[in-house]
Amino acid sequence: MFVEESMQIPRKKQRMRAVVYKGPFKVAVEQVPDPKIQHPNDVIVHITSSCICGSDLHMYEGRTAAQPGIVFGHENMGIVEEVGTGVTTLRKGDRVVMPFNVACGFCKNCERGFTGFCLTVNPGFAGGAYGYVAMGPYTGGQAEYLRVPFADFNALKHEEDFALLADIFPTGYHGTELAQVSPGESVAVFGAGPVGAMAAYSALIRGAAQVFVVDRVPERLQKMKEIGAIPIDFSKGDPVQQIRNMRGGDGVDKGIDAVGYQAIEPGKSNESPTTVLDALIQIVNPTGMLGIPGLYVPADPGGVDPHAKEGRLLIPFGKLFEKGLRLGTGQCNVKRYNRYLRDLIIAGRAKPSFIVSHNTPLNDAPTAYDKFDKRIEGYTKVILKP
Amino acid sequence: MFVEESMQIPRKKQRMRAVVYKGPFKVAVEQVPDPKIQHPNDVIVHITSSCICGSDLHMYEGRTAAQPGIVFGHENMGIVEEVGTGVTTLRKGDRVVMPFNVACGFCKNCERGFTGFCLTVNPGFAGGAYGYVAMGPYTGGQAEYLRVPFADFNALKHEEDFALLADIFPTGYHGTELAQVSPGESVAVFGAGPVGAMAAYSALIRGAAQVFVVDRVPERLQKMKEIGAIPIDFSKGDPVQQIRNMRGGDGVDKGIDAVGYQAIEPGKSNESPTTVLDALIQIVNPTGMLGIPGLYVPADPGGVDPHAKEGRLLIPFGKLFEKGLRLGTGQCNVKRYNRYLRDLIIAGRAKPSFIVSHNTPLNDAPTAYDKFDKRIEGYTKVILKP
Amino acid sequence: MFVEESMQIPRKKQRMRAVVYKGPFKVAVEQVPDPKIQHPNDVIVHITSSCICGSDLHMYEGRTAAQPGIVFGHENMGIVEEVGTGVTTLRKGDRVVMPFNVACGFCKNCERGFTGFCLTVNPGFAGGAYGYVAMGPYTGGQAEYLRVPFADFNALKHEEDFALLADIFPTGYHGTELAQVSPGESVAVFGAGPVGAMAAYSALIRGAAQVFVVDRVPERLQKMKEIGAIPIDFSKGDPVQQIRNMRGGDGVDKGIDAVGYQAIEPGKSNESPTTVLDALIQIVNPTGMLGIPGLYVPADPGGVDPHAKEGRLLIPFGKLFEKGLRLGTGQCNVKRYNRYLRDLIIAGRAKPSFIVSHNTPLNDAPTAYDKFDKRIEGYTKVILKP
Amino acid sequence: MFVEESMQIPRKKQRMRAVVYKGPFKVAVEQVPDPKIQHPNDVIVHITSSCICGSDLHMYEGRTAAQPGIVFGHENMGIVEEVGTGVTTLRKGDRVVMPFNVACGFCKNCERGFTGFCLTVNPGFAGGAYGYVAMGPYTGGQAEYLRVPFADFNALKHEEDFALLADIFPTGYHGTELAQVSPGESVAVFGAGPVGAMAAYSALIRGAAQVFVVDRVPERLQKMKEIGAIPIDFSKGDPVQQIRNMRGGDGVDKGIDAVGYQAIEPGKSNESPTTVLDALIQIVNPTGMLGIPGLYVPADPGGVDPHAKEGRLLIPFGKLFEKGLRLGTGQCNVKRYNRYLRDLIIAGRAKPSFIVSHNTPLNDAPTAYDKFDKRIEGYTKVILKP
Repeated sequence: MFVEESMQIPRKKQRMRAVVYKGPFKVAVEQVPDPKIQHPNDVIVHITSSCICGSDLHMYEGRTAAQPGIVFGHENMGIVEEVGTGVTTLRKGDRVVMPFNVACGFCKNCERGFTGFCLTVNPGFAGGAYGYVAMGPYTGGQAEYLRVPFADFNALKHEEDFALLADIFPTGYHGTELAQVSPGESVAVFGAGPVGAMAAYSALIRGAAQVFVVDRVPERLQKMKEIGAIPIDFSKGDPVQQIRNMRGGDGVDKGIDAVGYQAIEPGKSNESPTTVLDALIQIVNPTGMLGIPGLYVPADPGGVDPHAKEGRLLIPFGKLFEKGLRLGTGQCNVKRYNRYLRDLIIAGRAKPSFIVSHNTPLNDAPTAYDKFDKRIEGYTKVILKP
Repeated sequence: MFVEESMQIPRKKQRMRAVVYKGPFKVAVEQVPDPKIQHPNDVIVHITSSCICGSDLHMYEGRTAAQPGIVFGHENMGIVEEVGTGVTTLRKGDRVVMPFNVACGFCKNCERGFTGFCLTVNPGFAGGAYGYVAMGPYTGGQAEYLRVPFADFNALKHEEDFALLADIFPTGYHGTELAQVSPGESVAVFGAGPVGAMAAYSALIRGAAQVFVVDRVPERLQKMKEIGAIPIDFSKGDPVQQIRNMRGGDGVDKGIDAVGYQAIEPGKSNESPTTVLDALIQIVNPTGMLGIPGLYVPADPGGVDPHAKEGRLLIPFGKLFEKGLRLGTGQCNVKRYNRYLRDLIIAGRAKPSFIVSHNTPLNDAPTAYDKFDKRIEGYTKVILKP
Repeated sequence: MFVEESMQIPRKKQRMRAVVYKGPFKVAVEQVPDPKIQHPNDVIVHITSSCICGSDLHMYEGRTAAQPGIVFGHENMGIVEEVGTGVTTLRKGDRVVMPFNVACGFCKNCERGFTGFCLTVNPGFAGGAYGYVAMGPYTGGQAEYLRVPFADFNALKHEEDFALLADIFPTGYHGTELAQVSPGESVAVFGAGPVGAMAAYSALIRGAAQVFVVDRVPERLQKMKEIGAIPIDFSKGDPVQQIRNMRGGDGVDKGIDAVGYQAIEPGKSNESPTTVLDALIQIVNPTGMLGIPGLYVPADPGGVDPHAKEGRLLIPFGKLFEKGLRLGTGQCNVKRYNRYLRDLIIAGRAKPSFIVSHNTPLNDAPTAYDKFDKRIEGYTKVILKP
Repeated sequence: MFVEESMQIPRKKQRMRAVVYKGPFKVAVEQVPDPKIQHPNDVIVHITSSCICGSDLHMYEGRTAAQPGIVFGHENMGIVEEVGTGVTTLRKGDRVVMPFNVACGFCKNCERGFTGFCLTVNPGFAGGAYGYVAMGPYTGGQAEYLRVPFADFNALKHEEDFALLADIFPTGYHGTELAQVSPGESVAVFGAGPVGAMAAYSALIRGAAQVFVVDRVPERLQKMKEIGAIPIDFSKGDPVQQIRNMRGGDGVDKGIDAVGYQAIEPGKSNESPTTVLDALIQIVNPTGMLGIPGLYVPADPGGVDPHAKEGRLLIPFGKLFEKGLRLGTGQCNVKRYNRYLRDLIIAGRAKPSFIVSHNTPLNDAPTAYDKFDKRIEGYTKVILKP
């Protein structure tokens, strides 16, 4: 039978190396069991690149409910190694990139494009992911091999190394989609980390007239300037006022929060989880929209106060209402966008790799995590090479 | 010149009667100056009906910054009495209904259908209205005559008495538009007052499969049952749990907040301004949308705590994000909907007047305000007849 | 292995009965081989109901390239009999209804909801279907058993006998979606056969103010009146003029062509394939939209002239352009709609079965085809019961 | 009264120069009466630039019902000279650009953004324009002065000379809007004249991955290459096959017809009005969309056959349906787009002036018309300077 055929392929290794979470601020590269085909629709992928994401740092810092033992890695790409018997479109040797979401493709939410909220892959919850707390039993891809379920749906074939299509480019783009950024509009993006940079880049791709990007790290602001956005350094003064001054007193059409709950107030060093939302509600014009791809969590052990620990934030809702603002939140539905973003890269009209600062061997992952978390030595985006 | 021609028409009265705000919980019917044509695009309307709105009660109760002297009334209809020289489509004698918004039709926001956020009619602010605090210099229509600016744009001709098209039917419909209610969906509406009733009614018109409406006033719940919605009495237990029980544990696709900041928690009598938002974030399924036509204000002298006084509310934003919810807020852009809602009424396919409980002469306005505010004697919706 | 396990289940019968096309105007109930699981994602369904569709008649009449031997039947429902090893959500005994489209769920088109144009299931062509010429190797369901590929995606579980969800209700609804019918609009539907009746019904569900339906069969027009639409008998005069007269000279906002290429001109008996398109371009107001679910084919052996034989029609394109009309065509993407239409039925808010005129045993299929094709004895919609 | 005040301003001239149509292939610069304020909402604009449009050539060539005496010019910009008493936002001296459409802003169509189909300004017809046959009593702007009705709505203030915002940039953009061009898509544009060039440019602004532009004039194709589109020379072979070859056999997501009814077949010199539509239906993938800003007319005295003379074209409708294509037609609703396109120009992110080949004094208009019509000496887009 065909199933045996694939099962009988002698796998090169029975124990692979992987990045394992050991507790707050500690990861290690250890030997773990190889993944196996568990269902006819699975494939096993030999990982060639797996990025470290800013959201890995939330777990790394102990700011989530993640327990030691998790293998990290949800921005994965590689080469198909084994193919389940139910798989139709993939062959051994195909180069593929996987959305960070694990999704089935046929449930009520997937059907409508909400693949980030799949009802099948993580029973009792809407949405699954690789190597992430509470996102189901899917081992991460910061490792030599990865099991990919519902592989026809989840694996996107590609020609070259497009690892940023797994998460960060689509997630930034998702911010512009939630805010419905249209040609000729003005946009304020808070955060110039990987998601913010990709959101600003996507806003420009979509034809925005002016894209302001707020951050305080000089290297990040410099990159934003290079792609044609307008950098706003919030360490130099209230970003809302800075943008208004550049707009003759006017606000902007749309806003994007690419920071999330670990935001820092201008001029202060401690966390202020509503500071970005506050600023967006001020700077976006009445009838505008806010796209919020930046992460907010319902349970945060390190929250600044009892409310923040359970994900409750004090929002100027009266002002939001008065201005008739609309907002969209939530993790990205990668499948909705990645085919088209891939085509932009192939056509040479998008080069999101400008944000990658480091390509790092798998064994150096602990150092990379440490430096990325501290935002030092220009660590803006890291790709691991198993 | 033609302007003088219209100005010289001898007006029947120089002093008209109007409902004047005198301070918290006090209105009076007094004589005030007649309105006059001030601009070539104005018309003067002889008012035949003007409803009392739930949002009039916010001012009536002293829960806004409204100062004594305001003439109330933003749900107005009547007969054109005088026509400015710039007006193209209206003639003396035309029966018209006006959106509660005053709008110009040509600014950046009006052009895109956001007539509730007009940039022209109330300089320095987005949006104008008749007889409402902070909404510009437009006297209300709970009076004998009303000046209507930009009348070609603002006055909708009609055949009969369709006063509910000025505000309450479009505002309820706006809730379903903000939530993008589609055929076959399940919807939870909080509040069965006039706006909630119209939102539930609109959801059914749009083809929703199940519409749950949460309130505790028996007459209101009874009306909801009569139109085909499913009443949920929150005085009998947690409405979220009640709806889940009726849905086999599932939540709903969409939610509508038709209550706003003066919400009351189930089982309690004091205000709890986030109770409806909390419940909606619980009951709406991941990827769903929340339409929020219910009023939230940026300044509330009677707020339950210092934060509420400045319109800041403690929202479970982490949960909102985890579920990938989207939400839309703000006052209704009446012009966007009222032409089509009128056609539904004309065709006999909508009869929103089921919510009108009282037709009252202008002189009895003080009593009507008092009873409507106390929700007694079945006062659900009042139309004043000058 | 699990595949063998399912293959070894002793099937009750090795030869089943099925409706087989024998040539123009001839079908027979014959013994054909039972379908078998061919891929891990297949299920075999024991058919309980399979409707005869108006588009079956196109083949039946020899007006397509269909060759003898095809087993008809694309509106299928039944009970799951066997389950492939790759299937996740279905169990033996589940009652299911299948879209007439066969689709994979993961190709570029399915991903975006265009499941009627799947690129996987019928290589070299966009779209597959059961028992239909040129739509791939999928045997029809007017038989005792049916193989359903990609069953997690294609089979929708249901509680009762909802066979109309396989095609005719979603296809009628599709017409209203292509025309973007919105609350309060006026709509003209040409054709009151099953698709037209469902389109008119869907337009009313979506909140249209006035729905005109044009046909000449009295029973059909009577049914349209019963559901609240306005019947227009085109044998009594130009339908465009009749509708204008009822609208005070005005046209309508939207139009739906539920007739297609076998249209008949008012007052004549021979075919006139552009008569409905002509009328729609006349009756729909400038800026309106035309939804065209009615079938047009690129090759028609029985076409009225050489152009029609190759699907080329003489359209008043200059008038279409002058009015700024938009139009949408193509077979329905059933999966996009059927979950929500099912919920409307379950909630008791839609009862599309009003169009079913006959429930017929499988053995009587030849007679049913003959009478349905001749539109005699009130044959408007037939469900076969194997 | 204020009306007199503006009327009494002594106008500098009583007779102005204007480009007057004298009959097929003949225009003259003649003296005509100055325009006057006719309604309180009018302004008089002193024209600084007025482009010659490809659609002026339809009249110039005698291919419309235009009668001698028409003053041409619908792409107009200039300086406000006189202001009617009903005008709110404009002052003498403001630099303005007018959409070619004349629209009221308050009718059913304008309200929904369909300003190209205004029901007020040209009674009995949907839509008005300056200086164009059948588009109402509005004199064109290829003259020294122009009357602009409903000026608050129709005149867009600008900082510099943005005459292309009156028609050609928005019209090209309109093609991409009708086709709903989205980031990452592939697009085929037929025609690289001003509208096609602006459509291709707009598709790139919106983030299309690949934009193919079909023409045969070397200078035009060269310009398309310079902006990043892919030129396809149809004189070198079937453009459909050329594009497929460059896409590995695949078609494109979207198509735009910027040619219209005066199309020429590849390899032939005579007109073939369906050749572009035929090609688009071939090259656009199933489920795709066609945007058709290129002009088709309901009456064409010079049509190639009796059907073409009345605007009826033989379209492969069966193939269109089989592929499930959607299409949108009609003249542009300029107001919907021009504010945002202006902001792109101001921000330096769009420079549509790359298509302007000649700036010409008003007196040289006859020569410019002649050369532009013959497409000689590199005449691709002419701006007249009165």
